[in-house]
Amino acid sequence: VTLDRGLGVAAPAGFGATGVACGLKPSGELDLAVVVGLPGTVAAGVFTTNVVVAAPVAWSRARLAASADARVVVVNSANANACTGPAGDEAVLATARRAAAELGCRPEQVLVCSTGVIGVPLDAERVADGVAKAAAALGGAGSGQGDGQAAAEAIRTTDTVAKQAGVVLAGGVTVAGMAKGAAMLAPAMVPPPAPTRPAGQGAPGGHATMLAVLTTDAVAEPAALRAALAEAAEATFNRITVDGAQSTNDTVLLLASGAAQARPHPDDLADAVRAVCHDLATQMLADAEGATKVISVHVGGAGTLAGALAVARRVADSPLVKAAAYGGDPNWGRILQAAGTAGVPFDPAAVRLELGGAGPAGPVAPAVLVRSGAPTGAEAGANAAMAAPEVAIRLHLGGPGPWGCVRTADLTPEYVRLNADSTT
Amino acid sequence: VTLDRGLGVAAPAGFGATGVACGLKPSGELDLAVVVGLPGTVAAGVFTTNVVVAAPVAWSRARLAASADARVVVVNSANANACTGPAGDEAVLATARRAAAELGCRPEQVLVCSTGVIGVPLDAERVADGVAKAAAALGGAGSGQGDGQAAAEAIRTTDTVAKQAGVVLAGGVTVAGMAKGAAMLAPAMVPPPAPTRPAGQGAPGGHATMLAVLTTDAVAEPAALRAALAEAAEATFNRITVDGAQSTNDTVLLLASGAAQARPHPDDLADAVRAVCHDLATQMLADAEGATKVISVHVGGAGTLAGALAVARRVADSPLVKAAAYGGDPNWGRILQAAGTAGVPFDPAAVRLELGGAGPAGPVAPAVLVRSGAPTGAEAGANAAMAAPEVAIRLHLGGPGPWGCVRTADLTPEYVRLNADSTT
Repeated sequence: VTLDRGLGVAAPAGFGATGVACGLKPSGELDLAVVVGLPGTVAAGVFTTNVVVAAPVAWSRARLAASADARVVVVNSANANACTGPAGDEAVLATARRAAAELGCRPEQVLVCSTGVIGVPLDAERVADGVAKAAAALGGAGSGQGDGQAAAEAIRTTDTVAKQAGVVLAGGVTVAGMAKGAAMLAPAMVPPPAPTRPAGQGAPGGHATMLAVLTTDAVAEPAALRAALAEAAEATFNRITVDGAQSTNDTVLLLASGAAQARPHPDDLADAVRAVCHDLATQMLADAEGATKVISVHVGGAGTLAGALAVARRVADSPLVKAAAYGGDPNWGRILQAAGTAGVPFDPAAVRLELGGAGPAGPVAPAVLVRSGAPTGAEAGANAAMAAPEVAIRLHLGGPGPWGCVRTADLTPEYVRLNADSTT
Repeated sequence: VTLDRGLGVAAPAGFGATGVACGLKPSGELDLAVVVGLPGTVAAGVFTTNVVVAAPVAWSRARLAASADARVVVVNSANANACTGPAGDEAVLATARRAAAELGCRPEQVLVCSTGVIGVPLDAERVADGVAKAAAALGGAGSGQGDGQAAAEAIRTTDTVAKQAGVVLAGGVTVAGMAKGAAMLAPAMVPPPAPTRPAGQGAPGGHATMLAVLTTDAVAEPAALRAALAEAAEATFNRITVDGAQSTNDTVLLLASGAAQARPHPDDLADAVRAVCHDLATQMLADAEGATKVISVHVGGAGTLAGALAVARRVADSPLVKAAAYGGDPNWGRILQAAGTAGVPFDPAAVRLELGGAGPAGPVAPAVLVRSGAPTGAEAGANAAMAAPEVAIRLHLGGPGPWGCVRTADLTPEYVRLNADSTT
């Protein structure tokens, strides 16, 4: 499976897509994307576990809890339509109705996503006008036409680049997608229905708006689609964090048109979906607001995978670890300090900490900084690792259990500046 | 009860204190504090719930779990003696032995605290020399002599000012103390013994090194002392957070000499201890690394106090809320976003959000921004509140239960810079 970042949501057969400007972005840039699948398209989704969910999340989650029968996705940027009260729900309904009328389906077959500032009423008329403009560009009903790149551009908020990735399987089936997300980025998404208990406490953690829409021309049962997406989201998007801030709007959708008339093995489909999600997540981290480097936190020996991921997440969300990485400061003590706050018991005297990395000149040789809980004095190695553009932290807690990895970016003065003066 | 920031650890009768330079700070500044109580002094303490604890925490916690019979405190700055392996434990033992020999007590009566960089071996000889120097200055055994201000100076790391506070009760009893802490500051301290289960998960949260030493000349039973300190720490230090990073070294000690020969009512003693702790916590927040303002997050209607504090902590630890406060950006949607990630269920449609504040010109009139989950459009009020030096967030979740408050500081480019290039 070879990734191709030239493939977007319109690449799989049976899908049309486009991006238009409907006036939500004061700059006049593209701000509304529409993706349309042929009749017969089925869909699956995963959604934020925030207690506070945007109106479009409530709508789309309810639609997919009731049925996989959905074939249109409308995404607007520049406004999250979250914390907007009953007017927010009305705006979503108006959007779904207009899209249905323009594209020849039922409103219940329209999934809606939004991203942008929270708490500002969404101008539903602008969105409806944009939907009509997009439908006109697509020729009415989704028919394999369109411009996936424009759609990927339209969903950007503070993203500096549009993000796409796709793969073509041996049998000719394509899985491809687009995504956005640069801050307020720490997804913890699950399939519908709404969780009866918020994930914040029971789950090992998890906490930007990130949006992704994937399409495939595979023939797939809704159950296989749901399973592939849930597993892929958990293993990829749910294991990145820019700032520990789980959005009200996080959503990933996967639509299958069946137009390739080929039914891949569910494992092959799942692998392809995961590969696309992994690459989109990697692109999001690389474009994290203000970031200058990426950090992989690998934790093992925590007893369970959930424990390993909880410890890795505490390290990945530590402002002190992230600021040290920004500065190339070999302050590895902060890694152990953060690890000890995850609520996961371990024996500090059994800990092993290794720092490595990678840069333009190739990999940085890993240095063992702590062995059996005691410092080894390998400070030169720590210096080299923390100065690398890609920092790799490997922390073994001394117990049984698998390794788990949470990826993040460094914390920079620029991140703070970007979030200090922008109502985004 | 009137607070007096001129009162420090040597103010209560029966205590001596001083600060000396022993060479841990390359600048040659004061870096070792010694506090000594008269024979018969009893002590209580609360300690970090981090799984990874510094060698001095392990020592002092074990001493106070075994007995309240302790009358000497040695605090060094510039090195946390954490993640230092068996050599770290040896350094603590050597310090306690030297202090006991110099000051005429048993090593078990010596409590030790450290703060500074993690993972660097502590030079125990310098500390021992410093202890000898301090003992000489104090005249051998604690006798009400000494310089509390020098002790408060000696425990500083990145603190820009020394922090002291004290009160004198009606009966002539004094409670006073010193503290340090400016980052890696999110204490969640409990009394000894070591918790069998780390607090990170079961507790509502909590996560700088902060150190505080309080003294009183009251006659107090060890049980009353322990209760007063535990309650005060929970209600004050444990409800501030600079960066969500619970240190390996957080410690608060309270020593009672009995030299005033007066036994206040336990409630009066508890009130005095709490007032001193509250003021020291306030001074820490005002001196938070890089901070330009303080933020109080009040949450009510979460069902329980624990729930209210968990939600308040998520908001107080949100980099997006804190960066918005720095910028004076009225991006209140981030408050609700963060609130929804605490694992505490509530009905978003029942939420009420009010922003107020205070500045040099007096209080900023509170503005109701969200009522019944919907925006009110009071953006002018949000602008004024977020621009104030003291921001007050009041979020009611619509359910029953008391209000709880977690206090924090804003997140600034300077905080990132300070933590990017300093191995502190």
